[in-house]
Amino acid sequence: MKPLILVTNDDGIGASGIRALIEVAQQFGEVLVVAPDSPQSGQGHAITLEHPLRLYKVNIFEGIDSYECSGTPVDCVKMAKHVLVKDRKIDLCISGINHGSNSSINIIYSGTMSAAMEASIEKIPSIGFSLLDYHMGADFSAAKHYATEIIKLVLERGMQNTLLLNVNIPKLPLSEIKGSRICRQAEGHWAEEFIPNTDPTGRPYYWLSGKFTCADAGEDTDIWALENGYVSIVPSMHDLTAYAAIPMMKYLDL
Amino acid sequence: MKPLILVTNDDGIGASGIRALIEVAQQFGEVLVVAPDSPQSGQGHAITLEHPLRLYKVNIFEGIDSYECSGTPVDCVKMAKHVLVKDRKIDLCISGINHGSNSSINIIYSGTMSAAMEASIEKIPSIGFSLLDYHMGADFSAAKHYATEIIKLVLERGMQNTLLLNVNIPKLPLSEIKGSRICRQAEGHWAEEFIPNTDPTGRPYYWLSGKFTCADAGEDTDIWALENGYVSIVPSMHDLTAYAAIPMMKYLDL
Repeated sequence: MKPLILVTNDDGIGASGIRALIEVAQQFGEVLVVAPDSPQSGQGHAITLEHPLRLYKVNIFEGIDSYECSGTPVDCVKMAKHVLVKDRKIDLCISGINHGSNSSINIIYSGTMSAAMEASIEKIPSIGFSLLDYHMGADFSAAKHYATEIIKLVLERGMQNTLLLNVNIPKLPLSEIKGSRICRQAEGHWAEEFIPNTDPTGRPYYWLSGKFTCADAGEDTDIWALENGYVSIVPSMHDLTAYAAIPMMKYLDL
Repeated sequence: MKPLILVTNDDGIGASGIRALIEVAQQFGEVLVVAPDSPQSGQGHAITLEHPLRLYKVNIFEGIDSYECSGTPVDCVKMAKHVLVKDRKIDLCISGINHGSNSSINIIYSGTMSAAMEASIEKIPSIGFSLLDYHMGADFSAAKHYATEIIKLVLERGMQNTLLLNVNIPKLPLSEIKGSRICRQAEGHWAEEFIPNTDPTGRPYYWLSGKFTCADAGEDTDIWALENGYVSIVPSMHDLTAYAAIPMMKYLDL
């Protein structure tokens, strides 16, 4: 039987990035699409507990079993697994191709990467793909090339089922990309600004803005790879335990 | 100068758990409260990008500088740091006391723990506290006892500023709690069910439900500690790199 590949994203089912990823996935197996019905950027690992969820079959991608879901990217993975697929094994979950970077700390805010993480919690090997180009009309051809190579190798060689890969592709023509690198997550953060304003009734509000900053100069990071023309691949996990800190924190064994 | 302690949560500024935590924090320093104006359970690391945010000063806790925010727990930490405090250092961020467990994989779905994680990204040492009792009228006295001891020690001995601690307190009277244990995060997941139903217009919907399951039998996990009458403390981090997997994934260096 051909592998079953679940495709999702956080930009919504209408984004061009998910269409690019579906075209890649079709080469390798049976494709199931469950994606949000609206943009869900920055939703992180949010799940919908306080509201009901809608799940509708849609006819957007020719010959592909596709659903739009009213929830978050993580809800999409949960619904795919527990409502649609149930007892059959999902062999791979791929998420994206995101319009914009999910390198460094952005893995944590990203709905695209949180969907991949949710799959890893369900013991489904998973990969999130992001292109460093926010434009809705971005050129996904180099990203599709690398997604094809990476998915092919992961399906052939296998991957620990609690892992997720965070793949970011630089905004460069394929001919200028030097290759791909296995990296660690760079230590960065957002230097936020909240733009203050007042609404038509005179009440104050703030709008989140900011600039990503990274003081981590390591040459083994995803940020270094991307700045130097490589595709970055960070093997990531949902076990957040800081194992190295356990001996140091023993003073809290009370 | 007394340490500046930021207090937040995900159950909302009206929850009794945050009041308990503020009472603990007051013993140790100057307290600033920035908490969501409505319940935000399951919001994970979501941030608000598509909408403006409201931030209002409130007069709920006597003598405590307090604000309610219309966003997620992570938004609350960002607004505290970048709108309210700005250049002064926040010495500690504490989040909770959550009404219900955040052990094992729940750290990832939890707004309480994501607020603590956001503080760690901002290099503010942080601790999330959760009591294994979902009732709004839960008895927080044992949780307050352990929160006091843990905060005291962390302020005295210091903690790496990129760490967060995930502290869970069993639903037991203080006299029956055996102590606290430094643990790793148990490998568990939610066996979800989506309850199907139809709305008044006849359209189908689903409501997320589920049961936490954990096949990880290790005696060094948070789940083991809690089931055996201990407070669990998991030192956690926002670097999600699966370092052990890096050599295994070198086949993707293309």
